[in-house]
Amino acid sequence: MLATILHTPRDIRCEEVPEPKLQKPTDAIIRLSASCICGSDLWPYRGIAEVKSPMAMGHEYCGVVEAVGSAVTTVKPGQFVVGSFCISDNTCPHCRFGFPSSCEQREFMSGAQAPLARVPLADGTLVATPVMPTDDLVPSLLAASDVLGTGWYAADAARVKAGATVAVVGDGAVGLMGVLAAKQMGAARVIAMSGHKQRQDLALEFGATDIVSERDEAGVARIKQLTKGVGADAVLECVGTRQSMMQAIHSARPGAMIGYVGVPHGVTLDGQELFFSQTGMQGGPAPVRRFLPHLLDLVLERKINPGKVFDLTVPLKDVAEGYRAMDQRQAIKTLLRV
Amino acid sequence: MLATILHTPRDIRCEEVPEPKLQKPTDAIIRLSASCICGSDLWPYRGIAEVKSPMAMGHEYCGVVEAVGSAVTTVKPGQFVVGSFCISDNTCPHCRFGFPSSCEQREFMSGAQAPLARVPLADGTLVATPVMPTDDLVPSLLAASDVLGTGWYAADAARVKAGATVAVVGDGAVGLMGVLAAKQMGAARVIAMSGHKQRQDLALEFGATDIVSERDEAGVARIKQLTKGVGADAVLECVGTRQSMMQAIHSARPGAMIGYVGVPHGVTLDGQELFFSQTGMQGGPAPVRRFLPHLLDLVLERKINPGKVFDLTVPLKDVAEGYRAMDQRQAIKTLLRV
Repeated sequence: MLATILHTPRDIRCEEVPEPKLQKPTDAIIRLSASCICGSDLWPYRGIAEVKSPMAMGHEYCGVVEAVGSAVTTVKPGQFVVGSFCISDNTCPHCRFGFPSSCEQREFMSGAQAPLARVPLADGTLVATPVMPTDDLVPSLLAASDVLGTGWYAADAARVKAGATVAVVGDGAVGLMGVLAAKQMGAARVIAMSGHKQRQDLALEFGATDIVSERDEAGVARIKQLTKGVGADAVLECVGTRQSMMQAIHSARPGAMIGYVGVPHGVTLDGQELFFSQTGMQGGPAPVRRFLPHLLDLVLERKINPGKVFDLTVPLKDVAEGYRAMDQRQAIKTLLRV
Repeated sequence: MLATILHTPRDIRCEEVPEPKLQKPTDAIIRLSASCICGSDLWPYRGIAEVKSPMAMGHEYCGVVEAVGSAVTTVKPGQFVVGSFCISDNTCPHCRFGFPSSCEQREFMSGAQAPLARVPLADGTLVATPVMPTDDLVPSLLAASDVLGTGWYAADAARVKAGATVAVVGDGAVGLMGVLAAKQMGAARVIAMSGHKQRQDLALEFGATDIVSERDEAGVARIKQLTKGVGADAVLECVGTRQSMMQAIHSARPGAMIGYVGVPHGVTLDGQELFFSQTGMQGGPAPVRRFLPHLLDLVLERKINPGKVFDLTVPLKDVAEGYRAMDQRQAIKTLLRV
């Protein structure tokens, strides 16, 4: 089959590889209905994360089960499933505490920018839909696998409450999903920070009530102005740079929580400064599996349409074009037809 | 009157000063029933915090209202009151959000190691008891002013839930109050970290179920062992050093919150390490005023006895001896008879 391999930074190719096989009794093989490119795929693509050997790319997936190992009991061939980018057993203490993204058996999914993929720990990782979804729902179901689940976790970790004023730092796909999540959780006001017209429009469509196009201290000043000097009740940090983290901390009111889901790069926090700001923080890889049943319900009931975050669709063979467009910020997120 | 003045590090004196007077219509003057020395008083005493000019010491207080300014409506002369070490109006947005310790009009109390003290913003800061408490309750009511309220906040910020396993880093007075708070909030297991027999005994009396006497990585290993490799559901960090913060982070299970109330000194946090540990953090000066009504009820109903944290009582004129004993860890906390 054709699959996506990153050989060295920027050398991304769709090339012939063997089809995946069941390796363990707990595995499943799924035929993907669609795949996509994640913002985090750009780290090795850009050489920010090391590429030691050719990497099978892709960790967001949904599709139809082709085969299951002998130990798999909760999904069966023919069912439509969505899984998290974090493989988890859903039974260990960390999973039961609500953090399958720190599962004792955690693995990170790979090789999903392809027509077929092997999913380890299928029972713990995959969630089947009650019926076969129609094609138009596939992009939204695919989004639940990572980008929506991650934006949702940002809002969950920030303890967004009904009636709250929420600020979202970052207008990438995750930030836009954070806007959607905050809205769903009942936020009265969702302030999206973005300087790009197309992303602003999408943020408004997902439920943003205010747009702040200024950045850094000017952006913070604008948020303070919008909140009568108080700051936001909850802040979603969806980038991971020092700049975005400081913007988040300074936009938060004392006692607010910051949910941070952008993997921090070059971020150090001064304990005393954080102490006196009185802002709380929680982050980490998103425990998407915890949210999946609820998110699939919302999509299947057509209450949310996260699939709108895909603004470019290319066939798998043109995956390099998808990476290039996201790298140059010409696309928010690329859907791959497999 | 005699009051406590720190002239330079370690030069602490009880000396004659003018009695405090009402300065603003929102002030109250109270006659203290007792006063005490706080662990944070040791910072300037030890020269860790700068002493620019002679400092009127003392920020923990309870006693009887002597006089109130013309604008004060909620307390009146003759009433017994307890107030927070943070002066707050209890009406600003930060107070209403539950964080009076970040009140827009915040001041830090001073001059309370004396028989009389001026309390600014009396309406927002002071809570009157329904009846005049008996003398034996005074130490516990005094504790509510800071040390108990701060330990309580550590447990609150750590989101201690009924049935939880809680680890407390720090066996100072605040840590011991954290043990008491976690127990009151329904923790099934409270692991106190202490290498000192007397403090271990007090921790057990306040509700600790386990004592870990090891420190640093050995202490973390012991907590992991006690929790079957999982880590604590909630961690209270009650010291403020880099060492204690690392001990807290490494003792926490993924998804746990750390409530940190020791003012961080020399603590920097690596964003990526914190991210992948998936532990949340919230700290800051304790919003004691939020907890005061509940804490006073618990004391008056004799459900808790936080006053036991005072293991040395000296008359005000011997305040220097009280500081010396705490500095040398011969006393956990010193009560001053005023």
